[in-house]
Amino acid sequence: MTVKPSLNPLVALTQQSMSDVNKVILDRLQSNVSLIPQLAGHLIAAGGKRLRPMLCIAASMASSNNTTKSPESALYLAASVEFIHNATLLHDDVIDSSDQRRGKETANSLWGNEASVLVGDFLFARAFELMVETNDIWVLKKLSVAAAQITEGEVKQMSMLGQPESPLSDYFSVIKGKTGVLFAAAAETGAKVGGGNEIVCEAFYQYGLALGNAFQIMDDALDYGASDSQIGKDLGDDFSEMKITLPIILAWQDSSDKERKFWKRTLDTGEQREGDFEQAQLIINKYSCIKRTLDFASAEVEKAANAISIIQDSVLKDALIEAAEFSALRDS
Amino acid sequence: MTVKPSLNPLVALTQQSMSDVNKVILDRLQSNVSLIPQLAGHLIAAGGKRLRPMLCIAASMASSNNTTKSPESALYLAASVEFIHNATLLHDDVIDSSDQRRGKETANSLWGNEASVLVGDFLFARAFELMVETNDIWVLKKLSVAAAQITEGEVKQMSMLGQPESPLSDYFSVIKGKTGVLFAAAAETGAKVGGGNEIVCEAFYQYGLALGNAFQIMDDALDYGASDSQIGKDLGDDFSEMKITLPIILAWQDSSDKERKFWKRTLDTGEQREGDFEQAQLIINKYSCIKRTLDFASAEVEKAANAISIIQDSVLKDALIEAAEFSALRDS
Repeated sequence: MTVKPSLNPLVALTQQSMSDVNKVILDRLQSNVSLIPQLAGHLIAAGGKRLRPMLCIAASMASSNNTTKSPESALYLAASVEFIHNATLLHDDVIDSSDQRRGKETANSLWGNEASVLVGDFLFARAFELMVETNDIWVLKKLSVAAAQITEGEVKQMSMLGQPESPLSDYFSVIKGKTGVLFAAAAETGAKVGGGNEIVCEAFYQYGLALGNAFQIMDDALDYGASDSQIGKDLGDDFSEMKITLPIILAWQDSSDKERKFWKRTLDTGEQREGDFEQAQLIINKYSCIKRTLDFASAEVEKAANAISIIQDSVLKDALIEAAEFSALRDS
Repeated sequence: MTVKPSLNPLVALTQQSMSDVNKVILDRLQSNVSLIPQLAGHLIAAGGKRLRPMLCIAASMASSNNTTKSPESALYLAASVEFIHNATLLHDDVIDSSDQRRGKETANSLWGNEASVLVGDFLFARAFELMVETNDIWVLKKLSVAAAQITEGEVKQMSMLGQPESPLSDYFSVIKGKTGVLFAAAAETGAKVGGGNEIVCEAFYQYGLALGNAFQIMDDALDYGASDSQIGKDLGDDFSEMKITLPIILAWQDSSDKERKFWKRTLDTGEQREGDFEQAQLIINKYSCIKRTLDFASAEVEKAANAISIIQDSVLKDALIEAAEFSALRDS
């Protein structure tokens, strides 16, 4: 029996700096306007894996050949990336009218959409303040371009709603935007402030991009029950929000006319009834679309590992490769 | 009869560069995701006075002693400031559920709240991309701090909803955040890229802040019908949104118990009936609150003129002073 890949080695190696990153995050959430740290703290304290800042820290350590600690500017950068990520989560929850996130009530359901929109904007602005503190124009350029690409990905995703006939290329362009580029920029700019040269920075960009894509593909598979250990968990959010993800596009391509009518009814006109989600899962499994989705994720993992093959071997490099494998083989 | 102050002299003096700024704006609205230029273009093409970028350009010209053209980086900066402003407008319209802006249907009423939130985020990110092109970390620092302060002002305004008993200091802190600091940063960073020294930059910061405050105070007065030439125009948006602005705070302070009950019913519990807005205007006028509001605006105009008293006399300086007067004495 093979051992499942884990994030633990990367968590252990970045622990010291990540504890400093958390201090920066809490410090920069502060504001005279008390609703801001209250609302943002609710989301950020709920945690999540902190994968984006962790990659930023790890890339900075790998590039500076300091195996225990990252340079100080990487702390600002890592916090900045986490702020951008959380800003998009706040806005996503408003857009999807979500009630739950990370097992807690969402900020929009507790404080209203207005507050969530504004505090998202605050986090976004604070993220820029933090990255300015790196004093590195190259870093600022990369992250501001990434920020624009994220929103382009999200708008494109919205434009695809209800169109299961969308080509695969549209899906990959959406996930690169909404997820891949922030992972990519986190790793790339981490490498830069760690002292990495152009080749190392580009390697970490490609590593982050592929890992981020794998992470999102897996996310989209998990929403249709890709993992056996998901029993009892909430599934079907993407389906009820009529999002066009990889399992759906693959299923559409192989579907019969009758099945295509089902997809159009449930995902385009949005008429969803009791039992529709189970029916969607049946069609998806009939054409092995979860397995094929996971194959796409595995291909990204291979790209990620290849990308950083140029850096020196170390336990950190092994942990980075395992983190990429984890992204595509996780249960939640 | 005194002649009303006008923006025209400043418009004429900045015309050449502002036409270049408009080109940058249109160019940077482009995206492969067609909904973005469509939606953002709808708002930005509708125009408005372009007062913030105009001040940025004028400050850069005043500081570089070039009376016909601004330095190139001021063009990016001016476009960036206009993008930030329009991002906040898109999000404000979502928050206020507004149907009309600049005499046209709002983006949220045409494309939905989701698209408006995301395209607002896009404009915000694009604004940072633009300011990075100035290659000036000092400028980036000032603008990113301003961006965070804007959202703090907006959140604070939201927290004050329904509280007419709020102190004046809260009102001034809100308008400084939501309006003043962007005008201030536009003028200050314009001065910086024009080559202004620390004293000149600070002078333009204070000028922009005071002008922005005057502009917002006048906005708040106009919503209760401050100008005779407003007959037939829409009034009362702030009242129906239960916003606590200067005319309301001043009126509350002088109101009788019975009048205070009226304010609490209409602005706190939000029970508004036919004729309530006219009743609000009556109480406001009974205590001369529009006149006193305009006095506060005039005080800001004086501060603006004083702030730039240190720069060399020129037609541009005269136009800048007249622009500040215009902010506090306009009809719309």
